[in-house]
Amino acid sequence: MVKPGDSLSDLVLRALPANHITLQNGDVLVLAQKVVSKSEGRLVNLAHITPSQRAKDLAVVSGKDARFIELVLQESREVLRVRPGTIIVEHHNGFVCANAGIDHSNVRGEHGQPEDWVLLLPEDGNISACHIRNELELASNTRLGVLVIDSHGRAWRNGTVGISIGMSGMPGLVDLRGRPDLFGFHLQVTQVGAADELAAAASLVMGQASEGLPVVHVRGFPYPLREGELSELIRARDLDMFR
Amino acid sequence: MVKPGDSLSDLVLRALPANHITLQNGDVLVLAQKVVSKSEGRLVNLAHITPSQRAKDLAVVSGKDARFIELVLQESREVLRVRPGTIIVEHHNGFVCANAGIDHSNVRGEHGQPEDWVLLLPEDGNISACHIRNELELASNTRLGVLVIDSHGRAWRNGTVGISIGMSGMPGLVDLRGRPDLFGFHLQVTQVGAADELAAAASLVMGQASEGLPVVHVRGFPYPLREGELSELIRARDLDMFR
Repeated sequence: MVKPGDSLSDLVLRALPANHITLQNGDVLVLAQKVVSKSEGRLVNLAHITPSQRAKDLAVVSGKDARFIELVLQESREVLRVRPGTIIVEHHNGFVCANAGIDHSNVRGEHGQPEDWVLLLPEDGNISACHIRNELELASNTRLGVLVIDSHGRAWRNGTVGISIGMSGMPGLVDLRGRPDLFGFHLQVTQVGAADELAAAASLVMGQASEGLPVVHVRGFPYPLREGELSELIRARDLDMFR
Repeated sequence: MVKPGDSLSDLVLRALPANHITLQNGDVLVLAQKVVSKSEGRLVNLAHITPSQRAKDLAVVSGKDARFIELVLQESREVLRVRPGTIIVEHHNGFVCANAGIDHSNVRGEHGQPEDWVLLLPEDGNISACHIRNELELASNTRLGVLVIDSHGRAWRNGTVGISIGMSGMPGLVDLRGRPDLFGFHLQVTQVGAADELAAAASLVMGQASEGLPVVHVRGFPYPLREGELSELIRARDLDMFR
């Protein structure tokens, strides 16, 4: 149970020996957004939110709680779609997702009763990843990558998949353009969303139903580590065919 | 180098002992679309294609070869977007993707010269997976899952990721709705695109640059196997917010 102010790097460093893991150069730590957000105090009690008129209007269209919509608006640059049960936005961090990534969260009030709390995404997932990476690298004297992931829906497919919402020390995209294939031809489709593929793989290992496995240790990520960031994975506005 | 008519299950069964693998109940074999398509003779020489007027028109808008566009149209139910460099369609198998999944392929002509060949997706990825699964299960006396994957782009993110284009004996979606979380709340976001998460994971292992690793053996897929199919993962037309 991660609490606001908890150091995730401390928690990871303490969990590693119990799992017989010694960090090595090139390892990647994948963290579930939920624990990152909790450690950063991103829990909000809906009882303290007063919705704007716009939030009330969008609440009617979407059928969602106006206080919840108010937070979605505060976390977003732009609303892209509103339909019954769904609101799709561009988050302040640049990516497109439903509900600005806000989840109802596993929390209880002081008297043990469930309350109407929600959990916002980290303010900036790259910065979250960078802090954790710095602390882990310092403690282990290794060169690491850190990835923060969430589960998002897709435009034209059912089901959520793990995707990247922040990273440090690893590539978002891997560019294979111009690399000759087995016959000396040059590849066409060639920018691989490597961090998102790793996010999906880690999500599969984490599962969805609990906080039981919020960190995945990856050895053998098949591409070289480098300084990378989330923006690589975000399609430029004028190339985004959804808009 | 897989050739038309090659039995992929034979190739897999021969490769397993060399990799010290004995198939067990619950294992999943993930196959790259490229080798499935080749084994099914889905290579087409563009020199033999005569484009329709519509293909010629769309070729002008997209800046692509009209013969290539003709094949894209033949493989599709509907064209969703055409812009310079891009054509997005609904494939006959129901999913939305660029170019109907058609790739320029690694082939040479009889005289060793590269030729203008392209590789179409399998006619029906579920059926491809089903055939391969039946043969592998019969030979190994196990209960398996088989997944056929390709690398596709996303609406609002850069980079391709591995996704499912056919499956047999495994779930596409895993429904966690109504499952209580750690505090007894009921989960909201709860349909996981488990087969697509596995597709992305396998794609990461396969890499992109060659046919060097066209099959990935998976042990420990975290959800129960069942009869599943691709259609689970395809968003219903009226819920697809891209259209």
